[in-house]
Amino acid sequence: MPSIMKVNMTTKEIASSENPDYRLLGGRALSARILLDEVPPNCEPLGEKNKLVIAPGLLAGTPVTSGSRVSCGAKSPLTNGVKEANCGGNIGLFLGRFGIKAIVIEGQPKDDHSYVLKIGKDGASLLTMDELKLLGTYETDKRLRAKFGKDVGVLCIGPAGENQLRMACIASSDPNGELKFAARGGLGAVMGSKKLKAIVADKTMEQMPYHDRQAFMDMVREIHAEFINNPSIKSVNQRYGTASIVKAVNAMGAFPTRNFREGSIEGVDNLSGEKMYETIVSRGGEGKTGVSCMNGCLIKCSNIYPDASGKKICSTMQYENIALLGPNLGFTDLDAVARLNYECDDIGIDAIEAGAALGVALDMGMGKWGDLDRCLELMGEIRNNTLMGKILGHGTQVTGDVLGSKRIPTAKGQSFAGYDPRGLKGNGVTYAMCTMGGDHTAGNCFGSRNEVPPLGRDRQGDLSRDTQFRICALDSLGFCIFARPPLLKVPTRMTTLVNALLGTEITPDQLWEIMGLNAIRTEREFNVKAGLSPASDKLPEFLYVEPLAPTNEVFDLSEEEMLKAVI
Amino acid sequence: MPSIMKVNMTTKEIASSENPDYRLLGGRALSARILLDEVPPNCEPLGEKNKLVIAPGLLAGTPVTSGSRVSCGAKSPLTNGVKEANCGGNIGLFLGRFGIKAIVIEGQPKDDHSYVLKIGKDGASLLTMDELKLLGTYETDKRLRAKFGKDVGVLCIGPAGENQLRMACIASSDPNGELKFAARGGLGAVMGSKKLKAIVADKTMEQMPYHDRQAFMDMVREIHAEFINNPSIKSVNQRYGTASIVKAVNAMGAFPTRNFREGSIEGVDNLSGEKMYETIVSRGGEGKTGVSCMNGCLIKCSNIYPDASGKKICSTMQYENIALLGPNLGFTDLDAVARLNYECDDIGIDAIEAGAALGVALDMGMGKWGDLDRCLELMGEIRNNTLMGKILGHGTQVTGDVLGSKRIPTAKGQSFAGYDPRGLKGNGVTYAMCTMGGDHTAGNCFGSRNEVPPLGRDRQGDLSRDTQFRICALDSLGFCIFARPPLLKVPTRMTTLVNALLGTEITPDQLWEIMGLNAIRTEREFNVKAGLSPASDKLPEFLYVEPLAPTNEVFDLSEEEMLKAVI
Repeated sequence: MPSIMKVNMTTKEIASSENPDYRLLGGRALSARILLDEVPPNCEPLGEKNKLVIAPGLLAGTPVTSGSRVSCGAKSPLTNGVKEANCGGNIGLFLGRFGIKAIVIEGQPKDDHSYVLKIGKDGASLLTMDELKLLGTYETDKRLRAKFGKDVGVLCIGPAGENQLRMACIASSDPNGELKFAARGGLGAVMGSKKLKAIVADKTMEQMPYHDRQAFMDMVREIHAEFINNPSIKSVNQRYGTASIVKAVNAMGAFPTRNFREGSIEGVDNLSGEKMYETIVSRGGEGKTGVSCMNGCLIKCSNIYPDASGKKICSTMQYENIALLGPNLGFTDLDAVARLNYECDDIGIDAIEAGAALGVALDMGMGKWGDLDRCLELMGEIRNNTLMGKILGHGTQVTGDVLGSKRIPTAKGQSFAGYDPRGLKGNGVTYAMCTMGGDHTAGNCFGSRNEVPPLGRDRQGDLSRDTQFRICALDSLGFCIFARPPLLKVPTRMTTLVNALLGTEITPDQLWEIMGLNAIRTEREFNVKAGLSPASDKLPEFLYVEPLAPTNEVFDLSEEEMLKAVI
Repeated sequence: MPSIMKVNMTTKEIASSENPDYRLLGGRALSARILLDEVPPNCEPLGEKNKLVIAPGLLAGTPVTSGSRVSCGAKSPLTNGVKEANCGGNIGLFLGRFGIKAIVIEGQPKDDHSYVLKIGKDGASLLTMDELKLLGTYETDKRLRAKFGKDVGVLCIGPAGENQLRMACIASSDPNGELKFAARGGLGAVMGSKKLKAIVADKTMEQMPYHDRQAFMDMVREIHAEFINNPSIKSVNQRYGTASIVKAVNAMGAFPTRNFREGSIEGVDNLSGEKMYETIVSRGGEGKTGVSCMNGCLIKCSNIYPDASGKKICSTMQYENIALLGPNLGFTDLDAVARLNYECDDIGIDAIEAGAALGVALDMGMGKWGDLDRCLELMGEIRNNTLMGKILGHGTQVTGDVLGSKRIPTAKGQSFAGYDPRGLKGNGVTYAMCTMGGDHTAGNCFGSRNEVPPLGRDRQGDLSRDTQFRICALDSLGFCIFARPPLLKVPTRMTTLVNALLGTEITPDQLWEIMGLNAIRTEREFNVKAGLSPASDKLPEFLYVEPLAPTNEVFDLSEEEMLKAVI
C-alpha cells in the first residue's frame, strides 16, 4: 500500500506508515484530510504546529495524460484557512511511482540551516545544504540537478519562501528544465518556515502496482485518443496556451485593469495569445510553444517566451499572469509582462498575488501605471526583503492595509485572479464562498459563459458550486484542469482508471462525493475551526458600489444566490 | 427623554430622535446596542458603513464623583470586532447635561475637508475647519478652545487618526487643559475615516432632569464620604496614580519587559510610582500630582510630569504607559517614558499599542533596547506617516506580521496591556476571551491577586468573567474603574443613583444583567457576526512554550478554564 512519509524538521526524523482510511484519497482531498486530522486549525500558519503536505494525485505515477500533478497543502498564511495549490513538473510522477501518497513536513528546526529532503529508491534523507540559501529558484533547481541528476524531480522555494513572505510559492521542475509553480496561498512561506529549501526525488521508471493493468491502459488509450483527435488541442492549446482567452475576457469586461479600476484595456491585442504565439515564433531562438509541463502530457500548453534576440525571458507565459502583471499594472506589452513574470518565478512568489499587490501599491501612488523600471524595482525590493519588499511580499491584503487602500481586490486575504467579479459574477461567487479565498482554480466559471451569462444575477451560485466540486475531484486525482473535457463528458472514464488501479468499485457519484464534495467539506470544517466563519465568505465593499467600465456593472448578487455555492 | 443625535457625514445632515428601548442603556452598553442595531457587523471598519458612537455614561452629567466618562465605540480596525474605549475629560459631563445619550457619526464625506461637530445650547452643526488638518492633538485642542471658549469639552484626533492608522485614539480635553484618551481599538482611525477632526461641546450648567433629586444627592454624598474618608486616596491615588502598582507587577513577574521576553526588569525602582511622585515634587515648576481628569472627581489620580527644568513633558504618566513604553522598550527612566508618552498623545495614538508595536520592531532588529533617540525617530515616522510609520501605526499585529515576528503580543489583533499573561494568568484569560481583544480594562484581574493566585491554574476563568461584566456595568454607567470599591461593596448605591435619576426600580441583579452581562452578550453577538468566531478567542503560541523569567512560567490554562470566562 502506498505510504505517508512524515518528515519531522524539529528532530530530523523520517518515518513512513500506511493508513487504509486514506486509500481513496489523493492530491487535494488527501491533503485536506491530513491537515484536518493533524494540524490544530487555529495554529499560527508559520509556526511549528502547521504542516506542509505534498500529495501527488491519486493517479500520479500512471501514464494517463495530464494526470500526475502534485498538490501542496497547509494552513495558509494568506487566508488563515486551509490551502491547496497544485502544479505540474516531474515530481508527482516520481513520487507516485515510489509509492508515496503524501509527504508531511512537520515541526521546525531550532537551527538555522537550509535543508533538502532527498528521496530515492533506497529511501529518504535530510541533507544540509546551506550553499543554497537565498538562491533564486532557477539557480537552486540548476544546482540540485547538477548534483543529483538532470532528470530528478525538484520542488523548491526561492528567497521569498525562505524569508517567509506570505506570497511565496513552491516551484516544481519540469521535463524541459523549466519551472512550474504551486503558486497560491503562500505555501512557499510555510516551507520556508520549516527551513526546507527543496525536495528532490530521483527519476524512476518503477511500475505502479496496478490491480488491472490492462483495463487501466485501455482507458488511457481511450482518453488519449480524444486529445489526439481534438484539433483544437493543436490549434489553440499548443499555440496560445491559457493566453487564448485574453481577448474574450477583455471583451466581457472582466479583464483586471489598473487595480481592478476597469474591466478592459485599449491595446489588448498586444497581450493576446495570438500575439504571444506570433512573437515567440517570429523571434525563434530559445522560444517555443507547445511545451509539456509533465512527462507524456498531450496538451502541451506551456511555452518559452524569448526576447527580441531569441533569448529566453521566462516560461510559461499564461493567462493569469498576463492579466495581473499586464493590464492590472497598466501594461499592454508582453515583453514587460515576461520580465516581471520571470522575477516572480525566480524570487519564488505567486505572480497573481504579486501583480495584485503591485496593482494596489501603484494605485496608492507608489509608482505610475505601466512603468516597467519602477515595477522591476519593486520586485527587487521583494527579492531583497526590504521594508517595502516585506509589505508587498506579504500579499495584496497586507499591502492594501498598510498603505491605507479602500480598493483591495482580495477574498479571505488572498488576491483575486484574472477575472473581475463584476464582469464574471460566477467567479465572484467562487472567490467569496470557496474554501480557498480569491482563487480561480477553485471554481472558474469562465468556461460556462455561454450557458450562464456572466453578468446575470441567477444561476451563478449553482454554477460556482458545481464547478468547485468537480475541479476538486480532478485536483484530487492529479489531473490538470485542461484534461476536463473528456473526463467530465464520460465520468466513468475516471472511475475506470481508479478502479483498475486500486481494485475498487466506485461509481462516478461516489467519486464526486469522496474526492469533490467531501474534500471540500473537510476543508470547510478546517476553515471554521480556524476561525473562518461564514462571515468571512464575502467580497470587498468597493465591488458593490463602484461600477466597472465598460459594462458599468457592480457586483450585485443576493446573499441567497451566494449561499447556493456553499458545499 | 435624552436623545440620540445622528450626524451623517455623507449628507452633512444632523437629526435627533428618542428611543425608549435605550432608556436604561448608557456608555458602553448603549454603544454596543447601537452598533449591533445599525452597523453591518462584517463591514469594513474604515469604510462608509461603520459608525462611530460617542455615548456618555448613563450617569454622565450628574455630580457623582468619577461618573461622567464618555464611551467611544465602533467596529474596530484593529480587532475587526466591536470596540469601546472610554475616557475622562469634560465632554461627558456636558453631553449628559445637554440630554444627549449618544452621538452616532455615520457615512463618509466625498470631499476632503476637515470637519468639526459643534454642540451647544441651540443645537449642533458641522463646521469645515481645514486649518486643523494634521495638527497634533494639543495644538488642535488649543485652537478649538481659543475659538469656542477655554472651558468647552473637546474630543479630537491627531494626524494618526486623520491618516487612518489603526492605533489612532481619540483625545478628550480635561479641566486642566490637558488631554485624556479613549485610546484603544483604533477608534481615532474610524473618526478619521469620517473626516471628523473634532467634536466640541459648550460648557453648560444645565441641570439634569432628576426623577428624585434629593435621593440622588443623598446617595452622592454617601459615596463621596467613602472617598473623602479613605486615607489611601490621598496617600496613594493622588500621589502615584495608577503607577502605584509598578513595583507589585514587577515583583509578580508580569511586567512586560523587552517585548514580553522577561517579566521583570532591574532598576524597576526608577519606574515606580514613588519615584514618579518624588521626581514631580522635587522638580516643581509645572509638575503636579493629584490632578483630576473630570470636574469634581475626588480621586484625582492624574499628574503632570515635568522635565528637570520644571517644564511639562506630558500628562498623565500612568501604569500602562509606563509598562509598555518603559521596560517593554528597555527603559528604566521615567523621563524617557514621558517623552515617548507625549509623542503618542500628540500624534493621537494609543500609548499601549504604540509601546507594544515598537517593542516588536526593536525585537526584530529595528533598533536597540533603551535607545530613546531611535524610539523618538520611530514615533516621528508614525507622525509623518512614512512607510515605517504606517507599519507601526497600524499596530502591533501588522508590525509583527510585516517584520516576520513569531512573538507578537496581541489577542484578536490588539496588543496586550501592561501584564504578561504568563505572570498574571487571569489577564491572559481576559485578553483571549473578552470581546475587546488584548485589553486590561475589559477585565483586569490584578486587583484580585490576593484572592486568586496569579500563577495558579484554577479560578482564573471565573475571576475574569466576574471582572468583565462588573467593569462593563461601570463603563455603562460612566464610572471610572477607580470608583469601584464603594460601588461594588454596596451595589444598591448604583441602583439608587439610576432609580433616582430615571424613576426606575431596578435591582443590583438587574443592573449587572442589563449593563454588564447583556451588554457583553450584545458585543459577542456583533463579534460573531463580524467573523470573530470562538476560534479567535486565543493567545499567541509563544506564550505556551517560552518560559518567562523570573518565574519561568508559561501560559498553561486549560481550554475548559478559559471557556469559563465566556459571557
